[in-house]
Amino acid sequence: MSFGHTVDVAVIGAGLAGLAAARALRGHGLEVVVIEARDRVGGRTLNHPIGDGKIVEIGGQWVGPGQDRVLALIAELGLETFPTYTEGQHLFEHRGRLHRYRGRIPLIASPALLEAWIGLQRLDRMARAVPADAPWSAPRAHTWDTETVETWMRRNLRTTVARQAITMVCKAVWAADPADVSLLHLLAYLNAGGGVDPMIETEGGAQQTRIVGGSQRIALAMAAELGDRVLLNTPVRKIEQLNASAVVHSDEARIDARRVIVAMSPALAGRLVYSPALPADRDQLTQRMPNGSVIKCMAVYDTPFWRADGLSGQVTAATGPVKVTFDNSPPDGDPGVLLAFLEGGDARALARHTAEDRRAIVLSCLARFFGAAATTPRDYVEKDWSADEWTRGCYGAFMPPNTWTEYGPALRSPAGRIHWAGAETATTWMGYMDGAIRSGERAAAEIATIAEVPARPGTAGTG
Amino acid sequence: MSFGHTVDVAVIGAGLAGLAAARALRGHGLEVVVIEARDRVGGRTLNHPIGDGKIVEIGGQWVGPGQDRVLALIAELGLETFPTYTEGQHLFEHRGRLHRYRGRIPLIASPALLEAWIGLQRLDRMARAVPADAPWSAPRAHTWDTETVETWMRRNLRTTVARQAITMVCKAVWAADPADVSLLHLLAYLNAGGGVDPMIETEGGAQQTRIVGGSQRIALAMAAELGDRVLLNTPVRKIEQLNASAVVHSDEARIDARRVIVAMSPALAGRLVYSPALPADRDQLTQRMPNGSVIKCMAVYDTPFWRADGLSGQVTAATGPVKVTFDNSPPDGDPGVLLAFLEGGDARALARHTAEDRRAIVLSCLARFFGAAATTPRDYVEKDWSADEWTRGCYGAFMPPNTWTEYGPALRSPAGRIHWAGAETATTWMGYMDGAIRSGERAAAEIATIAEVPARPGTAGTG
Repeated sequence: MSFGHTVDVAVIGAGLAGLAAARALRGHGLEVVVIEARDRVGGRTLNHPIGDGKIVEIGGQWVGPGQDRVLALIAELGLETFPTYTEGQHLFEHRGRLHRYRGRIPLIASPALLEAWIGLQRLDRMARAVPADAPWSAPRAHTWDTETVETWMRRNLRTTVARQAITMVCKAVWAADPADVSLLHLLAYLNAGGGVDPMIETEGGAQQTRIVGGSQRIALAMAAELGDRVLLNTPVRKIEQLNASAVVHSDEARIDARRVIVAMSPALAGRLVYSPALPADRDQLTQRMPNGSVIKCMAVYDTPFWRADGLSGQVTAATGPVKVTFDNSPPDGDPGVLLAFLEGGDARALARHTAEDRRAIVLSCLARFFGAAATTPRDYVEKDWSADEWTRGCYGAFMPPNTWTEYGPALRSPAGRIHWAGAETATTWMGYMDGAIRSGERAAAEIATIAEVPARPGTAGTG
Repeated sequence: MSFGHTVDVAVIGAGLAGLAAARALRGHGLEVVVIEARDRVGGRTLNHPIGDGKIVEIGGQWVGPGQDRVLALIAELGLETFPTYTEGQHLFEHRGRLHRYRGRIPLIASPALLEAWIGLQRLDRMARAVPADAPWSAPRAHTWDTETVETWMRRNLRTTVARQAITMVCKAVWAADPADVSLLHLLAYLNAGGGVDPMIETEGGAQQTRIVGGSQRIALAMAAELGDRVLLNTPVRKIEQLNASAVVHSDEARIDARRVIVAMSPALAGRLVYSPALPADRDQLTQRMPNGSVIKCMAVYDTPFWRADGLSGQVTAATGPVKVTFDNSPPDGDPGVLLAFLEGGDARALARHTAEDRRAIVLSCLARFFGAAATTPRDYVEKDWSADEWTRGCYGAFMPPNTWTEYGPALRSPAGRIHWAGAETATTWMGYMDGAIRSGERAAAEIATIAEVPARPGTAGTG
């Protein structure tokens, strides 16, 4: 299969970044094609039907204040939002006991939790000195990039409880253990999202708002606009750069383009064949940005029975393996849905069990939090993103030590005709849906400003 | 292109591991084919001609006591060895001054160096508790895998000089910075090679012995035995596993095999397409084992002029960017060759210079050590292994924190019909030529013991 003509830009990956890039390029009057390996669009967002036209989201799902690009796009696309369910009391499992509370996690309820709170405040202050668009330029970049979050905790937190609390934050935000992640990466990421509170909170934070019909609708709506410019079931294998153009090869298709945007996570982008080969810095970067590990589990019940007990469905627990839960029911609360996350080492350990055992373990955690009724859902859905051939880990990629300072500039520097997008390349809300959209628009802007690909008024609405 | 018949085993990669695997499989009477992307065999070993039939080795080159498999193979193949040049005095640059010494690095010449020596002894003792075939089972595995070598040094070494000394060891052995590498990985690797001294010493250690005609001759000799069973210029793109066989696909060739051995570094192995997709643990492991960064530089002079000054050509220097040098002349000392390593962050920084600038910087280091005559070599050769499309970093892969404990068993566990070889998978002399050979033979033994691929006496010498 060949297009038989040269498009202005070939975009690889029909996740939010790739679709937003294509949409922005069309706004500049450029002709695009989006090439996707899967049989669907949406990348790391994915709706899963649970009957009666209802869905659960088994990928990224939330938006929140400050995420202006995704919120604007949702409005432009005519989608609606609704608040994450937060009524009633949340549960916090601390020293083996369940505590009920309202509002923020009661981190000042004990001296040890106070220590965790002070630790998070300190990380927030440090993060302000780490520019998200150039973490390597922070005054203490080298020192902070030589260690893991784990060793920072060991040196700066005296109590196990405080370490457990920050470990929970690390798992919840990066789907990685504190021993996986460079301290500098944690700080850059916090800076990009505005700090600890905006990232971990529901009300007023990144988990505040949901999309009616599910977050994948953002991708579906953009893809609908693009029509047959989106090619599904077309895994790209190779990008060839010629003198005046580039050729994108899949098993059967060949697409000629003036420019290419690769909108994939760095690890998967590194698995394409590039001819000529990429510069060493870019190649070695892609060897050093692994994806996190998460299994998103959803138990579906006839009703959200925990609400009747005065519970919000939100749990934060130290022992696990389920350490974070949410009420993830549709807007009308019918059916009731509990969302349970397995993250970092917990996801890796549980992935080695059979599906049946894993389900039993997850439900037993939910029973510990919400009572015996939680053990008999009418449906149970899970998604191990590490096992997904076209994702290979969520929520996204992180930097282990000595990566930002040694390879940082290679993350976004174009390689000839190839530009890089994806949530990992965002400098605002890095790793989030909002960041993914911004990254696609940034890559599109890079191309739109290049003289050789002139804006051609009139093309946008026709082609 | 198709073989038109099914071989017993397809081996991917004609480095030492792949060739040793093929050789061992033929010894079991099995029919093999070795498929190599490059136009040559030898992988990370490579001879470079410098005229008059002489060569320099721009890849791995040394063998030493305890490396019994490579030494036996050298003898079997009829190759000869000669000692690395160590006559005269070595140089040690310490606090900006060059000190001459004989024998071991004079680590006890000052209190700070004594601290480095004690630190290395301590690492040696810790390494004894880390089984190289299962580092995750060490009693303190989790603790040691949560931190980088850098933070261990910061906590345990008080002086800058001691940290510099161990940093030099880290760069010299892993071509990585102490901030790159998990402490547990360093310990496992030390255990696999018998400890610090056997790894860093020349006389009595892993740099003791060279191969007449260059180390690539080991691979060339094995390839000669295999004849047309080695396919060059054939990059493998995909491995397909069927019910009763596997198919290895390159751009033009298709090879049917009962079993496959992938003898590539983990990062590059992870870039092949696997159908069906690999298990999550294996896939995420390959996202987490980056290759080191090294540029090997060779300056060729009419004579080894430093010998007349009573110098061995060996330098250990704190300031760099060249921190380690050797006399790398042919056995007859004609011409004189100085070998200079750029390793870890030094390699990455110097790779960003022009070739001309880099040469000038390297030669100015050599002039600091050996005098002005070093600035005018008759030839200068360098190899940046990170820029090599089919290697993407040397000396080999290392584990950042939280990789051995989270993913270790996936390093060697076969995935269906696919077995894993390569120096990184060795449990003795991991990362060395000796380890590469052992790994190939281990993978071959895994296959030879499987009933479905019976030994067929008489096949070995015919085919």
